[in-house]
Amino acid sequence: MPVDCTFVTDLPLSEDQYSFADEDRADFATDYGTTSADASPPDVVVYPRSTEDVSTVLAAANERGVPVTPYAAGSGTESNAVPVQGGISLSMADFDRLLEFRPDDMQIDVEPGVVGADLEEYVSEEGLYFPAFPQSAKFSTIGGMIANDASGIRTVKYGEVRDWVLELEVVRADGVVIEVGSNAKKSSAGYNLTDLFVGSEGTLGVITRATLDLAVEPAERLAGRAIFSDLSDAADAIAETIRAGIDVATLELMDSLTAEISNTYTGTGLPAKPMLLFELHGRGIEAEYAALAEILERYNPEQIDTAFDAMQRDTLWRARREIGKALQAYDPTRQLEVAGDITVPIGSYAEMVRFVGEVADSFDLPIPAFGHAGDGNLHYAILANPDATAELERVHEASQRIVEEAIAHGGTCTGEHGIGVGKREYLRQEADAAAIETMQSIKSALDPNNILNPGKIFI
Amino acid sequence: MPVDCTFVTDLPLSEDQYSFADEDRADFATDYGTTSADASPPDVVVYPRSTEDVSTVLAAANERGVPVTPYAAGSGTESNAVPVQGGISLSMADFDRLLEFRPDDMQIDVEPGVVGADLEEYVSEEGLYFPAFPQSAKFSTIGGMIANDASGIRTVKYGEVRDWVLELEVVRADGVVIEVGSNAKKSSAGYNLTDLFVGSEGTLGVITRATLDLAVEPAERLAGRAIFSDLSDAADAIAETIRAGIDVATLELMDSLTAEISNTYTGTGLPAKPMLLFELHGRGIEAEYAALAEILERYNPEQIDTAFDAMQRDTLWRARREIGKALQAYDPTRQLEVAGDITVPIGSYAEMVRFVGEVADSFDLPIPAFGHAGDGNLHYAILANPDATAELERVHEASQRIVEEAIAHGGTCTGEHGIGVGKREYLRQEADAAAIETMQSIKSALDPNNILNPGKIFI
Repeated sequence: MPVDCTFVTDLPLSEDQYSFADEDRADFATDYGTTSADASPPDVVVYPRSTEDVSTVLAAANERGVPVTPYAAGSGTESNAVPVQGGISLSMADFDRLLEFRPDDMQIDVEPGVVGADLEEYVSEEGLYFPAFPQSAKFSTIGGMIANDASGIRTVKYGEVRDWVLELEVVRADGVVIEVGSNAKKSSAGYNLTDLFVGSEGTLGVITRATLDLAVEPAERLAGRAIFSDLSDAADAIAETIRAGIDVATLELMDSLTAEISNTYTGTGLPAKPMLLFELHGRGIEAEYAALAEILERYNPEQIDTAFDAMQRDTLWRARREIGKALQAYDPTRQLEVAGDITVPIGSYAEMVRFVGEVADSFDLPIPAFGHAGDGNLHYAILANPDATAELERVHEASQRIVEEAIAHGGTCTGEHGIGVGKREYLRQEADAAAIETMQSIKSALDPNNILNPGKIFI
Repeated sequence: MPVDCTFVTDLPLSEDQYSFADEDRADFATDYGTTSADASPPDVVVYPRSTEDVSTVLAAANERGVPVTPYAAGSGTESNAVPVQGGISLSMADFDRLLEFRPDDMQIDVEPGVVGADLEEYVSEEGLYFPAFPQSAKFSTIGGMIANDASGIRTVKYGEVRDWVLELEVVRADGVVIEVGSNAKKSSAGYNLTDLFVGSEGTLGVITRATLDLAVEPAERLAGRAIFSDLSDAADAIAETIRAGIDVATLELMDSLTAEISNTYTGTGLPAKPMLLFELHGRGIEAEYAALAEILERYNPEQIDTAFDAMQRDTLWRARREIGKALQAYDPTRQLEVAGDITVPIGSYAEMVRFVGEVADSFDLPIPAFGHAGDGNLHYAILANPDATAELERVHEASQRIVEEAIAHGGTCTGEHGIGVGKREYLRQEADAAAIETMQSIKSALDPNNILNPGKIFI
């Protein structure tokens, strides 16, 4: 059902700032997590270059009730940026400027289309970095990370993207530009609108500028991996590590199937065994490592390697970082049908890891499991042949079982990917109806005509 | 102007659950920060004992448009819990139960009337603690800390109260009970309502249960203090410590007047000099301390003391902890007129400290300054004779100048105390009009009849 977007041609934009061409629209019809059946192109792509452009487009779309969906790298796993109700895709590609870097304050102002890796390189010149980057930061953008409240391997020590966003410039659905938050590291001045926009997946406003807090690069780093014969041992070691207060900067789990899949893509030659990958940051980390090693040794590791140099460390983390791409490349006859992202309290983590294994067995599906173990986040991936209807049903039933179990442990269906389209049903199971109604009343207050990324989060 | 609250007698509450007596109402007419001129009693005090009681009261008050203001310890500095429009004061004193402790998950469910110190004692049995406690935790409650997004001396390393709240049970204005958040340490499942209720000062809902995340007590602690002749040196050392990535667990500033005031109340015998108080946590902290000491030495300290034992450490922190009470007791002819709470980016901190000194000089007012320096939070207190009108004007003009300067540095008028009544005008200066309008649209969506703690945050 096409949405009439011809009004775009009458807006004060230059002609190269919009396109109705099929080939351009097709670029915005999918994201990383969209299976082919769910592709949905916009009616027009608009390429704003300034906050004023965004404001103009939103005000006009709001008057007409036309959907507007912001799109940056398209690296979301849940069709978060796919315009499922057509209308306008708002390309944030031109919002790629690093605006003002204040190293003394350890802060930087950026536009939302800046790619994580570009920010990383830029601030590293002053010995600073953004510790909440997701694994996709080589290609994903700051705006997308904020929209989904992304997190990553260092979140166990440093927190989520949310924790490092100080101030946002946001264009509301009605085109009004607001500034929320401040440059102070903490504030109790009125409602925390910053944290409301973070993780709202473009449904409450369009972010046009962000002030990020930065951390100082650690004085020392020690990386390592512990390889186990038994996944259950690896999983049990995790909760004890956290409960003992070991100050891990990363603590990642990878099962043997994930290691194998990563190998075929990255060629990093990991043993196809369950393993924990870890990193410690700070001064005097030998003492911290001694305490960690003492715990790991109790869980029958086959091997523990440390003292990687910078290159070895990079190889280690590359094997982890590129799991997403490796999963997509693994089997040309299958696609990534489910990108699981459950998070549970740390005391339940090992049980969840075992539960995913049981589900894989009972549904006879290969389900690689891995994740940010230190904060209780467990990813599981289910690959399926998109044409095999019976298999697809089985896949979704298996995933449903896993999510149910996570919720039963007090956990969440998504630790960092967001709800998008793919997890809307899970949200209904996780949150109580009155809480969802409360979310929707906020949505209505800020976007009464439901033009901002409609069809996401809520069913 | 009395508000008719006689309907309370018809609610399904027992007779000892409400009081219209003057002496009871008087108890709720002020808080720590209310000057005598601003006392405002409720028309009735209601003492709910269950979530259901709270729901019943709110639903009935909502139908009638009667104000309801939750009240726990009354330790707010900005009349945050004072019922300035009368109606019902909702005493949360009976919500004082520690509900479920899950040490393996490092989590505890508590009611909002639990006093910080009671929680601290309870969870310490399992080697856990709540690192975001404010200095008032000996008498302030979890509910109040959440309502104001409090923070404290360890926030520089561990974050604010917000960062340690996982899940909340909240009663909405209409009496509907909702559960927001989950027990997962991170989640991207829909809007972050938890962070919206945290810091909303009881204006969006009444918190009836909270799940808190806990940290493991540090394996080692090292506390110390550095005494300077010159406040400016102490202030300059702060930014460099943070910029160098020293992993301080606390980094507090106290000027000489504050030290003197603290002494008269606590008798801890601090030298009346500018000083930094610090603490380091973790394994191998000698290396961290060496790096810190190297920086401090560059700023001409008169003396640096460390290696305090637990008792000495407690004395050290007591001098800091009881500044609030010491300020109130210091001069019987004067009261605490302004409890300043600005927070600025760390690069501007020293400049702000010097600016406060200049304002004190030019306005000829004694303005003790102290604060959570590591996160850029600077408290300043202004004592005044409540009957001296001209002096009061000068006091508020001085405070206005300081807040303006903080805002000009990108900072905030309140890092941890909240807006309440006292800082409403500052919020208008700090936040843009459209952002405040956005906050108010959320307030209207959740509390259309404006019954929840009316007269706070917004003018």
